[in-house]
Amino acid sequence: MHSYRRRGFQHERDLARKLWDHGFAVMRAPASGSKAKYTKYPDLVAIMDRHIFAFEVKTVYREKTIYISAVQVEKLREFIKRAGGQGYIAVKVIGESRWRFIPLNQLEETTGGNYKVPKELIDKGLRIRDLVSMVKGDRRITEYMGNKNS
Amino acid sequence: MHSYRRRGFQHERDLARKLWDHGFAVMRAPASGSKAKYTKYPDLVAIMDRHIFAFEVKTVYREKTIYISAVQVEKLREFIKRAGGQGYIAVKVIGESRWRFIPLNQLEETTGGNYKVPKELIDKGLRIRDLVSMVKGDRRITEYMGNKNS
Repeated sequence: MHSYRRRGFQHERDLARKLWDHGFAVMRAPASGSKAKYTKYPDLVAIMDRHIFAFEVKTVYREKTIYISAVQVEKLREFIKRAGGQGYIAVKVIGESRWRFIPLNQLEETTGGNYKVPKELIDKGLRIRDLVSMVKGDRRITEYMGNKNS
Repeated sequence: MHSYRRRGFQHERDLARKLWDHGFAVMRAPASGSKAKYTKYPDLVAIMDRHIFAFEVKTVYREKTIYISAVQVEKLREFIKRAGGQGYIAVKVIGESRWRFIPLNQLEETTGGNYKVPKELIDKGLRIRDLVSMVKGDRRITEYMGNKNS
């Protein structure tokens, strides 16, 4: 468990570094312990020119449906509501260097009241350069993925 | 040293909690270790409605001139330049519950190329409610403190 979490942090650092290299200001959340349970931090926040992107980071060994707890989704929703930003699940498939970002409103609810990213949605995820394009204003998110809630 | 840093984190958590209670989305930086030395995190970032405030946190036992390294100031400047926000030194005087925020451009350079917050400036620092007022747009920062660089 400990080494699994450590590996998770390494991937978060990798994503933070890549976003930084693309021009974003980046903050990673502190390693969460019992003391942090009342605070609502996303795993990572990237900001450029007042465009705010908040991420929950998920690492998988192959492309497959990813499950996300309702608590994590609510945490992210509350953060972006306050900040005025966009929320994403950041997916890293081990062995691939690219990251893919699934907009929060693309998540599907499970029968148990939690959420999932269906496998086929992962491949359609946005890339870092897509986020940069959104900031630069030359494209809109709806050009990449349909918005189920609108 | 270890317990001193631990106490520092407690104060950061206190500030994070207060900003959260005032409606901000808040991120604290991870505890910095050698692995984090290439990343440029402020101690704390608070965001409301796309207004971004980045803080370096300083704790003192009484009101006195506070020294800040050039490295810390540059780190904060780079972050706010990318994010499009404002930078502050967040000062906590032990034993007082209030926090005071000194805008980055109010810092004075030392002869050694570092920076300081003169003692008399601490008392003029902004409060959390002043940050909220700036977000709500009913007041501007220049109504609180003169801007030396403009």
